[in-house]
Amino acid sequence: MLVAIGCAVAASPPKTMGELLASSAPDDWRVPDPANTLYLDLAAGRVIIELAPHFAPRHVANIRVLARAGYYDGLAITRVQDNFVVQWGDPAKPIGTAARTLPAEFTRPVDASVPFTPLASTDGYAPQVGFAGGMPAARDAAGTTGWLAHCYGTLGVGRDNAADSGGGAELYVVIGHAPRQLDRNITVAGRVLQGMELLAALPRGTGPMGFYEAPAAAVNIERVRLAADTPAAERTPIEVLRTDRPLFAQLVELRRNRADEWYKVPAGYIDLCSVPLPVRVSAPSPSGSG
Amino acid sequence: MLVAIGCAVAASPPKTMGELLASSAPDDWRVPDPANTLYLDLAAGRVIIELAPHFAPRHVANIRVLARAGYYDGLAITRVQDNFVVQWGDPAKPIGTAARTLPAEFTRPVDASVPFTPLASTDGYAPQVGFAGGMPAARDAAGTTGWLAHCYGTLGVGRDNAADSGGGAELYVVIGHAPRQLDRNITVAGRVLQGMELLAALPRGTGPMGFYEAPAAAVNIERVRLAADTPAAERTPIEVLRTDRPLFAQLVELRRNRADEWYKVPAGYIDLCSVPLPVRVSAPSPSGSG
Repeated sequence: MLVAIGCAVAASPPKTMGELLASSAPDDWRVPDPANTLYLDLAAGRVIIELAPHFAPRHVANIRVLARAGYYDGLAITRVQDNFVVQWGDPAKPIGTAARTLPAEFTRPVDASVPFTPLASTDGYAPQVGFAGGMPAARDAAGTTGWLAHCYGTLGVGRDNAADSGGGAELYVVIGHAPRQLDRNITVAGRVLQGMELLAALPRGTGPMGFYEAPAAAVNIERVRLAADTPAAERTPIEVLRTDRPLFAQLVELRRNRADEWYKVPAGYIDLCSVPLPVRVSAPSPSGSG
Repeated sequence: MLVAIGCAVAASPPKTMGELLASSAPDDWRVPDPANTLYLDLAAGRVIIELAPHFAPRHVANIRVLARAGYYDGLAITRVQDNFVVQWGDPAKPIGTAARTLPAEFTRPVDASVPFTPLASTDGYAPQVGFAGGMPAARDAAGTTGWLAHCYGTLGVGRDNAADSGGGAELYVVIGHAPRQLDRNITVAGRVLQGMELLAALPRGTGPMGFYEAPAAAVNIERVRLAADTPAAERTPIEVLRTDRPLFAQLVELRRNRADEWYKVPAGYIDLCSVPLPVRVSAPSPSGSG
């Protein structure tokens, strides 16, 4: 009689992202800081945005002031340009104590306290690319200057022609193929964690640059609030996969060379904006207030 | 008295795509072959697709048979996966004399009769990238095998796990960041020339892989016809910028290094799927029948 003692059956390695994530540990996930998490509430649902204070400290602080003052509440999404951006803001609306414009934060000296996970490969837009604080990022060749990259879901600060003409009263989100030519040309303030489908499916504006021509076409923003300022019962308990853990490196490799049955030829490469950045919404705790 | 004789004022070089296209000559444009142009008519408007017979001859011929037989008419768009694809087809619908499946046409021996305009730079997905027959394309290092690349607007032939399990009865269009990992894994049959905003703004499916869960959510396809089979009065007189002319090379350079007032740092690079492929609809000729 054969008795299995402490017998470990070697499971086959995960072949898909779903299988890999199913094998994740609680420590592979992080809870975004509620003070840096924005809820953009539309009639169709909630868009959740993580702000990037390490890359745009002054702009993020200003966006927080604007959100707390209710500046974004009731604004319209005024621009939806196909394969480019969704944009909102109203240059005529009073902004209270917030700044209308700020010095540009297109790039930043590298902050050693923010883990940077480089991709093994690079691309033509930057000498180094990878993930910093969970967001697609790039660095110069010396590794002393960093910036966030424009990928699907990137949140940016609209500006006019002058570099210092933006401040956060006009924001945009990328809804198409990564417009990496914007990198280092505009302040990136964060990325959408959840709800991209609500922005990306909006009707395209028919005016120049995708602006809505008829005011009635504009989509109303009900409310923009920081998660930190939102009652616990109304918060969305979201978690984001950490980009500085071995599981994320496994995920990148799984996507660089697809191993599931459908794929016949692995690409052997993955570009920065094709790397998935998984999020999950955890079930509210039974003892929670929500 | 000063008399200007044959005086040419040197105009400043174009700084934007609009300025460059305004300087184009009629020969910089081509009229897509009506026998390779599909009209996909939705209630919201017309999507115009150019087929790629040089890259997928058997699939394109089969799609033509399916269109002529009215197979696509009345089908539903059944899948809209955010940042990925829109897909339609009905595996249960009779397909008449068309083939249900065909041998894969993932790559092709290079056809010397199709001009290939390489980009100066390459990317991690292929040793050579550029434009073949006006479509984003790639080649192996030897330059003997070619394939079409998955960019925003690429039309592909859905298949199951087996390489030869597609035929054209299920088609998809890319609506997000270029999924280049699909290159060489699936048959590409063409690209959308106009009307992407009608597909890209469709509500996302909420089921797995973006399939619509409620049949009522599916979007009806009124009709798919070849331009060649469409009465002249109902055709759209579209022209496409040629990719094998000097003006196109100027366009690529203008976009590789933006020179307009807004940009502060030129990228010095452009990835394959960020190169615009302009189309224009010409006004119907006063003597035309339409």
